[in-house]
Amino acid sequence: MASELRVIPVGGFPEIEAGADIGTMIADTGLIESGDVVVIAQKIVSKAEGRMVPALTREDARAAARREAKRIVRETENHLIVETHHGFVCANAGVDMSNVPEGVVALLPKDSDRSAARIRATLEERIGRPIAVIVSDTFGRAWRIGQTNVAIGSSGIAAVRSYDGRSDPAGHELVVTQIAQIDELAAAAELVMDKLDRIPVAIVRGYRFSGDGTAQELVRPPEMDLFR
Amino acid sequence: MASELRVIPVGGFPEIEAGADIGTMIADTGLIESGDVVVIAQKIVSKAEGRMVPALTREDARAAARREAKRIVRETENHLIVETHHGFVCANAGVDMSNVPEGVVALLPKDSDRSAARIRATLEERIGRPIAVIVSDTFGRAWRIGQTNVAIGSSGIAAVRSYDGRSDPAGHELVVTQIAQIDELAAAAELVMDKLDRIPVAIVRGYRFSGDGTAQELVRPPEMDLFR
Repeated sequence: MASELRVIPVGGFPEIEAGADIGTMIADTGLIESGDVVVIAQKIVSKAEGRMVPALTREDARAAARREAKRIVRETENHLIVETHHGFVCANAGVDMSNVPEGVVALLPKDSDRSAARIRATLEERIGRPIAVIVSDTFGRAWRIGQTNVAIGSSGIAAVRSYDGRSDPAGHELVVTQIAQIDELAAAAELVMDKLDRIPVAIVRGYRFSGDGTAQELVRPPEMDLFR
Repeated sequence: MASELRVIPVGGFPEIEAGADIGTMIADTGLIESGDVVVIAQKIVSKAEGRMVPALTREDARAAARREAKRIVRETENHLIVETHHGFVCANAGVDMSNVPEGVVALLPKDSDRSAARIRATLEERIGRPIAVIVSDTFGRAWRIGQTNVAIGSSGIAAVRSYDGRSDPAGHELVVTQIAQIDELAAAAELVMDKLDRIPVAIVRGYRFSGDGTAQELVRPPEMDLFR
């Protein structure tokens, strides 16, 4: 039976500079325990990895977003929805203009799964294993209004949790339910995070996890996508 | 600053029959406090509302799903993705073949926002206000593999939480970030729920909320949907 979870905000970080060791900074808060799922907002990962490019105008920012795109899904005067080189479908290729120094924009990490793995290695070395790390960002979605936090990087936890959820009354068909647990963990974490970067990290404590997957596994191949 | 949340599983319910008063049953657990967000799996709401129809075969189940559809999004031998009369895009119109008596399938509630409002009225009368109620279901989505829990009904909480998240470096544009908080709360709740119906309810405690919206508000009008 599932036990109670705690979702714990982790703040108090200084402004993150390129080259910052986020894993050590998070370990230094003294808040992490083995068994925790640690969810980290993409923005501070991008800053630590120096993923910033100059952009003085709106046109510059859009040009940066276009460079991050493998494909343009939709473009209007006010909106640019793309498929990034990672395969994520999101607004402005995840290029973020908030809470960065003036004159620059932050790009998504090159490989957020690797970022998560690196931070996890630091945390597990300092605190003990297992610790799962998820890098999250806030994406819009098809069909539904509003944005939710999803996992763009992950390490130390299976991306999905499967079980046999449905069979038809005559037992002809068995559709396996695959819960995108790293996305749900990212969403839970967002509820205590703060977009002004004061709370860029959250702990989900008490969630039993196993396996080791990547957020990349959640990118749905277009030919298998029945939802558009 | 955000404070810590608790996500608390609520189980121990008997098999839910048509006519069951779910609000009273949840109040009777003694676990709910004012200020709680109470997330309830759609299945028990459907059962209490008698939303079951006979279906002996796979073909019967699919026929039931088709009747719940306003529009077929995609149909293959093994998959049926529809837009329901409510406007939700999901597999099998949310028609559920698991954990129901043999020979029947469960449909989505007719109006899950009303179901949520009714349950909330009972809970607030018994326990005190404010209490928010969300009816959740597990939906697949475009672009990403796996399902996540989303809100299909809601009462006593705004559907979205807004803030000015992004402006471009030159201040030309201000895109308001709208977090679909009821979907994130549903996702957080799923982490402690149990598909075998032993844990059909979860409490999110410690989340500050206000406003009063519906899950229906999250249905994105097709003409405004840039994400397909």
